[in-house]
Amino acid sequence: MSVYSRLTPHLLAELVAITGQGYVLTDEEKMLPYSHDETRGDRYRAMPAAVVRPATTGEVSQIMRLAQEHRIPVTPRGAGTGLSGGAVPVHGGIVLALERMDRILEIDRENLVVVTEPGVITNRINELLIKDGLFFPGYPMSRESCSVGGNVATNAGGGRAVKYGVTGRYVTGLEAVLPGGETIKLGGKRAKDVTGYNLIPLLVGSEGTLAVLTQITLKLLPLPKASMDLLFLFDKIDSATSLASSIMAEGRIIPAALEFMDRSAVALACRFLGEELPHQAGALLLVQLDGAGEEELYAQCGVLGKLGEKHGALEIYTANDATSRRKLWRIREAVPEAAMSFYPVQSGEDIVVPVAAVSAFVGFLHQLADKYGCDVVSYGHAGDGNVHARFLKRSEQPPDQWEANLPGMLREAYRRAALLGGTISGEHGIGLKRKDYLNEVLGQTELSLMRRLKAAFDPCNIMNPGKGSGFK
Amino acid sequence: MSVYSRLTPHLLAELVAITGQGYVLTDEEKMLPYSHDETRGDRYRAMPAAVVRPATTGEVSQIMRLAQEHRIPVTPRGAGTGLSGGAVPVHGGIVLALERMDRILEIDRENLVVVTEPGVITNRINELLIKDGLFFPGYPMSRESCSVGGNVATNAGGGRAVKYGVTGRYVTGLEAVLPGGETIKLGGKRAKDVTGYNLIPLLVGSEGTLAVLTQITLKLLPLPKASMDLLFLFDKIDSATSLASSIMAEGRIIPAALEFMDRSAVALACRFLGEELPHQAGALLLVQLDGAGEEELYAQCGVLGKLGEKHGALEIYTANDATSRRKLWRIREAVPEAAMSFYPVQSGEDIVVPVAAVSAFVGFLHQLADKYGCDVVSYGHAGDGNVHARFLKRSEQPPDQWEANLPGMLREAYRRAALLGGTISGEHGIGLKRKDYLNEVLGQTELSLMRRLKAAFDPCNIMNPGKGSGFK
Repeated sequence: MSVYSRLTPHLLAELVAITGQGYVLTDEEKMLPYSHDETRGDRYRAMPAAVVRPATTGEVSQIMRLAQEHRIPVTPRGAGTGLSGGAVPVHGGIVLALERMDRILEIDRENLVVVTEPGVITNRINELLIKDGLFFPGYPMSRESCSVGGNVATNAGGGRAVKYGVTGRYVTGLEAVLPGGETIKLGGKRAKDVTGYNLIPLLVGSEGTLAVLTQITLKLLPLPKASMDLLFLFDKIDSATSLASSIMAEGRIIPAALEFMDRSAVALACRFLGEELPHQAGALLLVQLDGAGEEELYAQCGVLGKLGEKHGALEIYTANDATSRRKLWRIREAVPEAAMSFYPVQSGEDIVVPVAAVSAFVGFLHQLADKYGCDVVSYGHAGDGNVHARFLKRSEQPPDQWEANLPGMLREAYRRAALLGGTISGEHGIGLKRKDYLNEVLGQTELSLMRRLKAAFDPCNIMNPGKGSGFK
Repeated sequence: MSVYSRLTPHLLAELVAITGQGYVLTDEEKMLPYSHDETRGDRYRAMPAAVVRPATTGEVSQIMRLAQEHRIPVTPRGAGTGLSGGAVPVHGGIVLALERMDRILEIDRENLVVVTEPGVITNRINELLIKDGLFFPGYPMSRESCSVGGNVATNAGGGRAVKYGVTGRYVTGLEAVLPGGETIKLGGKRAKDVTGYNLIPLLVGSEGTLAVLTQITLKLLPLPKASMDLLFLFDKIDSATSLASSIMAEGRIIPAALEFMDRSAVALACRFLGEELPHQAGALLLVQLDGAGEEELYAQCGVLGKLGEKHGALEIYTANDATSRRKLWRIREAVPEAAMSFYPVQSGEDIVVPVAAVSAFVGFLHQLADKYGCDVVSYGHAGDGNVHARFLKRSEQPPDQWEANLPGMLREAYRRAALLGGTISGEHGIGLKRKDYLNEVLGQTELSLMRRLKAAFDPCNIMNPGKGSGFK
């Protein structure tokens, strides 16, 4: 885009002077992995002019100062596991890869916080903490490959959000570098803070469009002492989702996880795994309980059993040892891979509706897929109303037709979600993939307010331009 | 101030046309209750030009449009129970009293949310919900007199924040009117949302300096089925606060409440109540447990008993019926009134330090009070590191000297809190009282970023000017 400058050999030399030789990549082949995230489709790929890999906040600050002075777009990048194209450098410029800033700086067991750099792979934190009986609960499903910085930048959710909330709940402190190179420090190890505007949650989920996160303080919780899983089989999705609602409202139990799968998701996963479920299995609800002790969980199991029968469960399985728990979760965890293996062309969605509207929405998605001649599977976090629908191109459908149909189909799905009081993304983010649909859920007043906030942070619009709420 | 215009008779007539006769007060006597909140001291009083009491979002919108057009400052006001002078109209203009917008609009038991207007007295929500076994956990200590709008505007905390978090955690949707009169709608009944910048937590705690909150959606939780209280008596504060830390870190128990009192707070409350505690009682820790069942709580009691002994508890009392629980809490709850009755002149603080630093900080406060010739009591939320210190003017100290000393003493206290990694307010807010001390905890870069955000919302600076993070 003409508003931005080219990365001249002179500027490249300055970048090398900042990070040292070897940490500025310009070779196309080496840059290839940095040209996309895990979002499917060629439209979610773009090559940067350079990949810069800083090691310290000071280096990030110098890079940003240079970039702003010369109007070079900068796209911050964590582990590249995003599902919305948020880390794709659509305007070229610099990909700022934070993978070298991967130190866990402090585990403070007295104050129950951990201080980390953004490039730390999320699961490393919990691996380190387990011996202390502590954990960071805000992790997403991809915890073994994603980075903490990316989790914070997207306000990542995950399977346990129904009880423990999403990443943002655990961020008590942030260090970040503004587009002009200035470093800000917000919050810290304190549990409460009403000093000035609450900027931490504004940076959380801002998808690298406001500032570069360079240090993160996360609150920890004691590991629950006991946990248990239950799997409910139903003949139809309505029963599964109405049980999900009633577990919380009527049973007064907040499970650690509450996952659903619709008939086609169950079928796809079983086909992939070579498993057989009773043929009338039309929906599945997986419940994970955790708490202070086994007695408590057995009592809750009793409540859940009664509720399950009331809602017409065909079968109920329980598991409290590692092997049988893995078995229960296998079907749910297989869905993404199963979908990928049978349907190489697809669109993975992350729609949210109020919990009580999940079943109606899943029904609508199937009508929509029928209308557009594709398949669809729905599964995800029933307790949050977070529906991970995947629209799947049938092999017989011509690719052009799929491509032509997709935007209209997505718009219809998003519009219906909005109508039900939901939104177009619960945890994956807006990124590149959903930015043209923001107007389905946000009005012009809200959008222009967001643009003014973006300008207050990033007046030259160099921070991850063309993405998320950054818009342009 | 000269940047603002006077409220002319013509404009007053326009306000009356918007709200109807009787809802625009200009009589000094009638306006008196709106000239202050519950912050002690004449410096936290100012008379508005008019008090306007709208009944609907539409009226708020028209008032704001008029105010911005004519540059009239507007100070939104909830129930006036604030403790930082946030609702004091220091630049005159309009006090926008939201007390008539007091309807609970919807209780949605399926989606576990309540939708309310801002003027609802907080406790009314829980009174309505108790029969459904639900509650809104984010309430502050003043729940019987404060309003939900004020809770959200200050991100109020309270005694149960250690387990349940503060008000902001429960706000899933907001309707607000911008200074120019435009209405924005953010979030809703959905549990997760990463659509656009996360503006809800930015408005939460913004103390009426960015927008007027007109509708609030709050997440509900199932009421815990059992609860129990324990009171630990210690000879010194270090033991009480180190037990507080170890309950969470070592005992792996997150209590619903974890309150401490230092020696002088215990003495003051006992003197007020005419109670006797063992004379060596130098500190007190109150623990409230809640959970899914009694067995679980008894097991936790066992853990707490052992930890208490290890940390040198002199006595341990437990209570699980209403009468004996009230008795345990009596001493803690008496502190504010006791302090008021023996020391009519005082400064109530709301400082936060990391949990592990509470004891060191309390010790410092006593040295500070000695230095300045006043008394001090410290008590509050040990689990959050939220120290409600009250500096108390001794009767023999001349009022002039107290007034002259106070700013320096507060600055020293705040500076030490900052040095320990804490901050100057955890739940009461910056308001009028603490705005000159923001620079003790926020750098120039952070402050000027906040000013740019304020300008992005409120370019004419009419929203509660001179307050909180609104600065000017």
